[in-house]
Amino acid sequence: MAAKKKSQIKSATLFGRVALIGIGLIGSSLARVVRREGLARHVAIATRRQKTLAAAKRLKLGDSYTTDPARAAKDAELVMICTPMSAYAEVARAIAPALKAGAIVSDVGSVKTPVARDIGALLPQGVHLVPGHPIAGTEHSGPEAGFAELFRGRWCILTPDARTDRSAVAKVTELWRRAGSRIATMDAAHHDRVLAITSHLPHLIAYTIVDTAAQLEKDLQGEVIKFSASGFRDFTRIAASDPVMWRDIFLANREAVLDILQRFSEDLTALQRAIRRGDGAMLQGTFTRTRAIRKGVIDAKQA
Amino acid sequence: MAAKKKSQIKSATLFGRVALIGIGLIGSSLARVVRREGLARHVAIATRRQKTLAAAKRLKLGDSYTTDPARAAKDAELVMICTPMSAYAEVARAIAPALKAGAIVSDVGSVKTPVARDIGALLPQGVHLVPGHPIAGTEHSGPEAGFAELFRGRWCILTPDARTDRSAVAKVTELWRRAGSRIATMDAAHHDRVLAITSHLPHLIAYTIVDTAAQLEKDLQGEVIKFSASGFRDFTRIAASDPVMWRDIFLANREAVLDILQRFSEDLTALQRAIRRGDGAMLQGTFTRTRAIRKGVIDAKQA
Repeated sequence: MAAKKKSQIKSATLFGRVALIGIGLIGSSLARVVRREGLARHVAIATRRQKTLAAAKRLKLGDSYTTDPARAAKDAELVMICTPMSAYAEVARAIAPALKAGAIVSDVGSVKTPVARDIGALLPQGVHLVPGHPIAGTEHSGPEAGFAELFRGRWCILTPDARTDRSAVAKVTELWRRAGSRIATMDAAHHDRVLAITSHLPHLIAYTIVDTAAQLEKDLQGEVIKFSASGFRDFTRIAASDPVMWRDIFLANREAVLDILQRFSEDLTALQRAIRRGDGAMLQGTFTRTRAIRKGVIDAKQA
Repeated sequence: MAAKKKSQIKSATLFGRVALIGIGLIGSSLARVVRREGLARHVAIATRRQKTLAAAKRLKLGDSYTTDPARAAKDAELVMICTPMSAYAEVARAIAPALKAGAIVSDVGSVKTPVARDIGALLPQGVHLVPGHPIAGTEHSGPEAGFAELFRGRWCILTPDARTDRSAVAKVTELWRRAGSRIATMDAAHHDRVLAITSHLPHLIAYTIVDTAAQLEKDLQGEVIKFSASGFRDFTRIAASDPVMWRDIFLANREAVLDILQRFSEDLTALQRAIRRGDGAMLQGTFTRTRAIRKGVIDAKQA
């Protein structure tokens, strides 16, 4: 019966009206997926800035365009919030009166615990909240940077709570499946802890090391850029990610990030001490251990 | 006249006999370049381990094979030392009695200040030391991992001292030019300071963060690998680099690495404090500044 239900979803347009609130890298990539797959009869796009809205229009990402999220959300069966997380509460407050009964509200933010508070608590009864996080992105931002293939082969993690309507979860799952994603479902707090390690700490570190370089004397900085191909280059790519999005991530996932950062600092201090004392055995042991993790990543087909 | 000299070098085989001491990723890639470009009449390969030597032989990387570096170096016009740096003094001591007058000794190590002490001081009069560092590599090791294109478009930094024979420097320069590299020449200490930032610190950080993950509880570690595509994956690739080579780098460039590590730790602590205090403006300001460095890397065609 589950199989039958799945095929029913597949054969039909998933949604009547979809509203995309925010049309940056993720929102615009999703708009392209919805169009390619024919997942909605109408795509309403809302974004705060006129300039971004004009770009979305020029790129023909939707069927209607507005700077008013409530107007986009009216009569929508799915409202997908793709703004920076700091705008969530404001967006939720704006769309709440316009939402129809049975509507699904989802998001694409990188931290999941705050969604219940910033969005869920502000929604009317009868609206289904299905928080989501597509683990995909590039260092580029804005509607021009999006592309439909962004989500292909990438994980999308959904964090509905136990009481969430199952058909609403199934519909959001199917949307991401059609985007080419692999779907995982987990508890929001667990998601935030895993992502603090796999994503938030690496970004914080990359931002730091690139900023350390940015503060060097000018002549040395020029050579750091010139000879960046030896490791630093990879960090600059990570550290070119959207500043507002990442500010919001660190503020939203403060506890988990500070916890893993503390462990990282302890481990770094141990290596620093080994370098100072000339403890080659300790260094070699650590560097050998880390190779095994790389093997795990390759085996998991994430490399 | 400089142009004439250059074309003279180009039109002839550069060297009679070339000895490659050490035949890992870099040595074996260089062997492939020498063969492709016809740069030597005889390539002698020496490596300590029988198993590695057999692999080099199977790959037809040279014309003669030995585990005795002195035997390979005898009558060579160029001896290129491609072993881990911790073996330098032992190799120099072994080859010194076998070197002919006018021979050039060079290396490919990632730290340049110790070369004068570990190799130069042990060489006989009349032998020319031209230390070098091709900024190229992958996370793979061993003779099978090498390929002739490894150096194409990459920088090779030479650090001869002011008294070094100019025609010896010109010959090593030409070797790397034929490998497709761009050549820079600088003071050894300056090289080590630049590379501490662009390469050594990024590797140390990547090793640390991957090792922090390696020490997590098993179930969490599994999910870290599963969802690694969000930043962590790039670190695992860097942290899969050769453990012995990197142990040697940190021991050899201790002062410069500890200096930049100190600056990095201060910058990280400042960001940690901003996260704890919820200082979004500070975070956003830092993350915006780092984007400019990425632009520099792209403009320098290193991205």
